[in-house]
Amino acid sequence: MSDPLYDDPEFLELYELFPRQQKGLAGAGEWPDLQALLPSVSNRSFLDLGCGFGWHTRWAAENGASRVLGLDASKKMLDRAIATTDNPAVEYRLTDLDNLDLEGETFDVVFSSLTLHYVADLDQLFTTTRAATAAGGSIVFNVEHPLMTGPTKLDAIDHHGTTVWPVDRYADEGPRTRTWLVEGVRKHHRTVASWVNGLIDAGYSIDRLVEWSPTSEQVAENPAWEIDRTRPPFLMVAAHV
Amino acid sequence: MSDPLYDDPEFLELYELFPRQQKGLAGAGEWPDLQALLPSVSNRSFLDLGCGFGWHTRWAAENGASRVLGLDASKKMLDRAIATTDNPAVEYRLTDLDNLDLEGETFDVVFSSLTLHYVADLDQLFTTTRAATAAGGSIVFNVEHPLMTGPTKLDAIDHHGTTVWPVDRYADEGPRTRTWLVEGVRKHHRTVASWVNGLIDAGYSIDRLVEWSPTSEQVAENPAWEIDRTRPPFLMVAAHV
Repeated sequence: MSDPLYDDPEFLELYELFPRQQKGLAGAGEWPDLQALLPSVSNRSFLDLGCGFGWHTRWAAENGASRVLGLDASKKMLDRAIATTDNPAVEYRLTDLDNLDLEGETFDVVFSSLTLHYVADLDQLFTTTRAATAAGGSIVFNVEHPLMTGPTKLDAIDHHGTTVWPVDRYADEGPRTRTWLVEGVRKHHRTVASWVNGLIDAGYSIDRLVEWSPTSEQVAENPAWEIDRTRPPFLMVAAHV
Repeated sequence: MSDPLYDDPEFLELYELFPRQQKGLAGAGEWPDLQALLPSVSNRSFLDLGCGFGWHTRWAAENGASRVLGLDASKKMLDRAIATTDNPAVEYRLTDLDNLDLEGETFDVVFSSLTLHYVADLDQLFTTTRAATAAGGSIVFNVEHPLMTGPTKLDAIDHHGTTVWPVDRYADEGPRTRTWLVEGVRKHHRTVASWVNGLIDAGYSIDRLVEWSPTSEQVAENPAWEIDRTRPPFLMVAAHV
């Protein structure tokens, strides 16, 4: 198995240049707010759906997680993740999240960062994670915000002197094919409501939503993030069983 | 007490021309979906926050509610509501929702339609309704969607041949002064996350979100609603205690 996108050398070469892949969690402006949604992972088991190079799995292990399982569909990314830890609590597994099987597994914390918008059947995924979550356990994830996944065109425009984000097709859920580093990247657009209702239908109770935008201070340090106050780039959700 | 907006004769004359004020619930395209979020009101008490001319209070009474209390800040609207029912289960009360006092009252169903975006202190309101909700009771409301309350300019634009909705200031919550029938209408912009988190913080459990857009069939019957598929005009939330 290989991930047609994240194993693509052309894509990967560009992807590695993102600050968050160069600097890790310190390069991800939203990480402090995502981390704030997480319960303590100390002495708890942690599942990372779409672990990539392993930034969050290493964080969980360093923060005392009793077991960490990182799943990803990209063999190239997993190889690098495996090479960057020798912590015996950490395990990596090549996995297609559209065919996730957690039979016989139990986790206290299910986590995912910027991955679930690639999953076609979210109901099936949430049903699977719910069944594999220990009593009192939780799920915390972020995804591209529906204002990012939905629109036909993803470019800010000037509207009578105001920079605006051109929203359309919000109500039309389904796949979107984008040019993102390379052509033909397929993501799945769902409304905020569908992310929330999907969790509820799978048996979760909602704890928190965050439509993340950078603070004014973050924009001052990273002027390119200005557009992210116009509309949030990420949606974060925390829920428990 | 009088409502500076809804008691304004100029505003009211225009407001009465809306299909939903002429035809009642049959003129409100979203009502079937809002109604679907409501539990049975038969033999249950029903509180309507911002009852206006009383369309929903009469609906609750006709559907067997044991007690119906309609609250509104507009004396002119309440006078008309009072004149349109002689059902002894229905009561109307002139009330400013920014100073809501439900001391000693209990309701099974708290309801509000297109009103709460006028409320300045939502935390206080939700705390008050939560305290006045019976065990097993619920709250169901709709408001203008944050994609309606947020943007600086509320006009669809053409963007390379696609009709788009110009979103900006999504992250900047707070009051917005609009021209809506008349000048100087003040509404409060909150993100979807804040509507949900406000309920959770007050002690509610979230049951359902609906970011309502008309169906293609509704648009075919009402071509002016086309823009409402580009971005949802209403947010609906159902929660329970």
